[in-house]
Amino acid sequence: MDISKEWLVGFIEGEGNFHVQLSRVCSFIKTKGLEYYPIPQFRIMLTEEDGPLLVKIKDFIGLGKIYKKNNQYVRDKGINTKDELYWVISSVSELMKFENFLSEIEFHSKKKKDKEIFFDIVRMKHKKEHLTKEGHDTIVDMANLMNSGNRALFRANRLTE
Amino acid sequence: MDISKEWLVGFIEGEGNFHVQLSRVCSFIKTKGLEYYPIPQFRIMLTEEDGPLLVKIKDFIGLGKIYKKNNQYVRDKGINTKDELYWVISSVSELMKFENFLSEIEFHSKKKKDKEIFFDIVRMKHKKEHLTKEGHDTIVDMANLMNSGNRALFRANRLTE
Repeated sequence: MDISKEWLVGFIEGEGNFHVQLSRVCSFIKTKGLEYYPIPQFRIMLTEEDGPLLVKIKDFIGLGKIYKKNNQYVRDKGINTKDELYWVISSVSELMKFENFLSEIEFHSKKKKDKEIFFDIVRMKHKKEHLTKEGHDTIVDMANLMNSGNRALFRANRLTE
Repeated sequence: MDISKEWLVGFIEGEGNFHVQLSRVCSFIKTKGLEYYPIPQFRIMLTEEDGPLLVKIKDFIGLGKIYKKNNQYVRDKGINTKDELYWVISSVSELMKFENFLSEIEFHSKKKKDKEIFFDIVRMKHKKEHLTKEGHDTIVDMANLMNSGNRALFRANRLTE
């Protein structure tokens, strides 16, 4: 059975994750006063049983890659968990195509806000604004507003130059 | 913006939970050799921010009730969490209407299996089969197959009479 675009948006609002990783940058960029390098990633993680569905979703959208997460180290600690598969879109050019794909269907949950901030950051990165001090600080502030603001806050190192 | 049936099925595959609670029964039924009383519940739990969406979903389907889960006791333990709202359908007659509502749209994830077992149990309960020894044991076995079989197994007390 084929999936539809509306079904997929509903599923994404349930299971999808718009995430901007802020990596500590290497020293040659740091000299510009930039602390973090933003890595936007859209992800859906499912257990292996739903592997065929994940492939179907990836093929339907035609973007991203599927990786396997081996949870043996968790099982070694005595926790009953299965291996997981995750579908990730992380290149800026693919993410911009993904935004275009999603633009025709309305989001209904609070994930709508995450989606909007996420793609604002993607577009800034596309324009290389993350490599300017102003753009960098703006992206750090925006990333802190995502995912209900629940994660530990990253602080832009605001030098008063 | 209105939600659509396809969007909703996608969202349910992400966030919905088909659950059969097996409650220990009171003694007057226990005398029949029945250990558990099955309480099938369909639930979606969201944080308060998504309250308007939950109301929209409930009104769209026209079934179930919304409850609030106060997580103050969790926050008192120093864990950062928000209050939650859950939409629950638990009456057998409403669940049978819900099955009818879902029947027109295909499920794609492994939740499809949970859904099928769940509604098999609902129909058995509707026919009062949970009050016979054979039906009771069958329901316990079926419930153990749900939700990836990850929960602690309930064992039907099979008397060799």
